[in-house]
Amino acid sequence: MSHMPRSDLDPAFMALALELSRLSRPSPNPRVGAVIVNGGRVAGRGHHERPGMPHAEIVALGEAGSDALGADMYVTLEPCCHQGRTGPCTAAIAAAGVARVAIGMIDPDSRVNGKGVAALEAAGVECHVGLLADECAATHEAYATHRRLGRPLVTLKAAVTLDGMSADVQGGSKWITGEPARAMVHAMRAEVEAVIVGVETVLTDDPLLTVRLAPGRSPMRVVMDSGLRTPATANVIATAAEVPTVLAHAGASLESAAAYAGLHGVEILECSARQDGRVDPADLLSKLAARGVLSVLVEGGGRVHEAFLTAGLADRLALFLAPRLLGGGLPWVRFEKPRLLAQALRLESLRVSRAGDDLLLEGRLGR
Amino acid sequence: MSHMPRSDLDPAFMALALELSRLSRPSPNPRVGAVIVNGGRVAGRGHHERPGMPHAEIVALGEAGSDALGADMYVTLEPCCHQGRTGPCTAAIAAAGVARVAIGMIDPDSRVNGKGVAALEAAGVECHVGLLADECAATHEAYATHRRLGRPLVTLKAAVTLDGMSADVQGGSKWITGEPARAMVHAMRAEVEAVIVGVETVLTDDPLLTVRLAPGRSPMRVVMDSGLRTPATANVIATAAEVPTVLAHAGASLESAAAYAGLHGVEILECSARQDGRVDPADLLSKLAARGVLSVLVEGGGRVHEAFLTAGLADRLALFLAPRLLGGGLPWVRFEKPRLLAQALRLESLRVSRAGDDLLLEGRLGR
Repeated sequence: MSHMPRSDLDPAFMALALELSRLSRPSPNPRVGAVIVNGGRVAGRGHHERPGMPHAEIVALGEAGSDALGADMYVTLEPCCHQGRTGPCTAAIAAAGVARVAIGMIDPDSRVNGKGVAALEAAGVECHVGLLADECAATHEAYATHRRLGRPLVTLKAAVTLDGMSADVQGGSKWITGEPARAMVHAMRAEVEAVIVGVETVLTDDPLLTVRLAPGRSPMRVVMDSGLRTPATANVIATAAEVPTVLAHAGASLESAAAYAGLHGVEILECSARQDGRVDPADLLSKLAARGVLSVLVEGGGRVHEAFLTAGLADRLALFLAPRLLGGGLPWVRFEKPRLLAQALRLESLRVSRAGDDLLLEGRLGR
Repeated sequence: MSHMPRSDLDPAFMALALELSRLSRPSPNPRVGAVIVNGGRVAGRGHHERPGMPHAEIVALGEAGSDALGADMYVTLEPCCHQGRTGPCTAAIAAAGVARVAIGMIDPDSRVNGKGVAALEAAGVECHVGLLADECAATHEAYATHRRLGRPLVTLKAAVTLDGMSADVQGGSKWITGEPARAMVHAMRAEVEAVIVGVETVLTDDPLLTVRLAPGRSPMRVVMDSGLRTPATANVIATAAEVPTVLAHAGASLESAAAYAGLHGVEILECSARQDGRVDPADLLSKLAARGVLSVLVEGGGRVHEAFLTAGLADRLALFLAPRLLGGGLPWVRFEKPRLLAQALRLESLRVSRAGDDLLLEGRLGR
C-alpha cells in the first residue's frame, strides 16, 4: 500500500466520488461515493443510497460492467471486507478485475480499519490511500466520530445579537435572524439524524424543529426533559406521528411518562442524571449513537449548550450573528464556572459566510 | 452645472484624486485631493497637506503650470470660493484657464455649499458634480458630519468574545484579540483626531491609547471623567507632554482640578452633566468639534459606549470579534433600558474582514 497517491491518479475523479457521496444519507453506515475510470473515461459511478442497499463500490461496478477490468476505482472511504447485510466490497472489486483503488481515508470502524486495503492487496489490487484526504475526512467526520468515540458528531447552533443575546428582556427571540439564516438552519437539520433542544425551549418557543424552508427530510427531535415537563399539546408532540420525538428524561416518575401513552411517534427515553438531576448529555449521546445517530444539531437553549460545552461534548459551533444590539436581554450561554481569558474555549478553523443580513460563523471547538 | 458626469470624464482620475486625498489630514479642513489632466495625461497632482498650507487645487495647478490651460481638473470636493488663510480656489482655477472641473461632492460647509460651482461657472468653467460620488462621500464623511451636525464623526470600537464579553470574570481583558487586531486599532487611532475612553478604563487598564503598532501620529486622548478621578500617575497623564490628554469633567471641584496643575499637555475641560452627573457626550462632542476635531474613536468601556449609543451619537461601530467563549464575565455593553427585538439598534452596510484569528465587523449604526 502506498500512502502517497500516484501522480497519474486524478483528484478530479475523487472530487466526483465526494460529490456522489453527498447524495446518500445511509446512517449508521458511512456516506460513501465511488467512481470507476477506465482509459481516462468514467465507466461507473455509485453512492450508498441507504442501509441494506448496495454499497457505492458495488453500484459503480454494476454500471461499469466489463469496463471495470484493469480500471482505477476512486472511493472516498476504504472498501469493507466484512460480511454485513451486503457482501464484502473488497471481494467484488478484486473479482471485477479492478487494477488500482484510490482511497480517500481508512475506515475507522474496527471491523475494517486497514483490513480492507490488506484484502485488496492480497488479491493483487494496488491501493493508494490519501487522495483528497482532508475533503474525505470532512465528508466522513460524523461517521468517524461515531465509530471512534461511540457518540454522534455534535454541532451547537445559536443565533445571537452583537452583544451576545439570544432573546430580548421580554424573552422575544422571533426573530433575531432573518429568513435566509433560518433557511440555513433548516438545511442544517436536514443533514443530521437528530436535533436536540432543552425543555425550556419547548416551553418558551414551542418550536416545530422540522425542515420546512429547505429541501430534505426532518430529523428525529430529542427534548432533554429531565422531569418530563413537555406538554402533550406541544408542537413536537402534536406532530410526532410524522416526525418522531424522543423525550429524554432522568428518573422521571412512571406517572409522568404515562401522560404520553398511546401518542404515536413519541418515545420516552430514560437517561442517567447528572449531579444536578438533569439529563447527562454523554449518556444521551451514547444512547443515540447506539440507534445509529451519526450527527446531532443542538439548538439550545443556553443551558443545554452549556451542558455540552462544559462536558467537552461539542465538536462544532454554528453561530448566526445578527447585526443588532439590544443592550441587555437573555445571554446566549452562561457557564456555572465562567472561564478566564487564558482558558477560554476557542473556535478553530473559523469560516464566515453571509446569511442575508446576518453572518454565519462556523468552526470547530478547540479544547 | 451638470450633475451627470460627462462620458469622457474618466473615473480613474477621480480615483487618483481620492488616493491623493488620503495623504492629508488637515483637520479642521477637509482632506481633498486634486488631479489636472491635459490630453489624457496627468499634468498636476495635489493634496491639502495641513491647515495654512495651499489647498489641493492650488498644489495641482502649481505642478501643471501652463498645462492647466484647457485642461480638466478632478477634485474630490467642491473648490472653495471664500477667502480663508489661503485665497479662493475658484479664482485660481479660472485664472489658470482650466476648461472643466469634475467634482466628487458639493462642500457642505455653509461658506461654500454650491457657491464654488456657481463662481466657476460664472467664470466660464464647466462643472460636473458626482463622479465617484459614493467614494468621495465616504472620504469626506467625517468632514461632512462636522459641518452638517456640528460634531465629529463618532466610531465606537470594542473587542468582544463570541458571547459578547469584553473581559473575563476577573476583569482580564489582555488580550481578548490578537496582535493583528490590536495593530488595526492603532491604525484606526491614527485616522482620527481624538480617542475617547471612560475613567473606569483608565483606572482598570491604564492604557496608553497611542499609535505604536501602526504608522501615523497619535491623536489627542480624551477621558470622560466626571469627578476627575484620573490618577496623576496614569499613563495618559504621564505621557501627556508627547500626546495631549483632555480630562473632560462635569462640575468637579477646583480642588480636584488643581491636582493636574503644571502637568504639561494635560487639559481640564468642563462639560455639562447629564441627569446622573456624568459628562454629557453631546456637549463633549460639540466642544471637541469647536476645536477642529472631525472624527473620534470611542474605545469604551461599556458605559461610555452606552452613553453614545443611547444618545444617538454613535455613527459607526468597529467590533473586533474573538473566536472564543468565556461563558460569563464583563458584558461589553448594557443599556439601562435594554431594547426589545423590534427596536434593536442595527448595524448597516456591514463589512467583515479578518484580523489574524479574529474578525472585524464594521458598519453604520442605523436608527
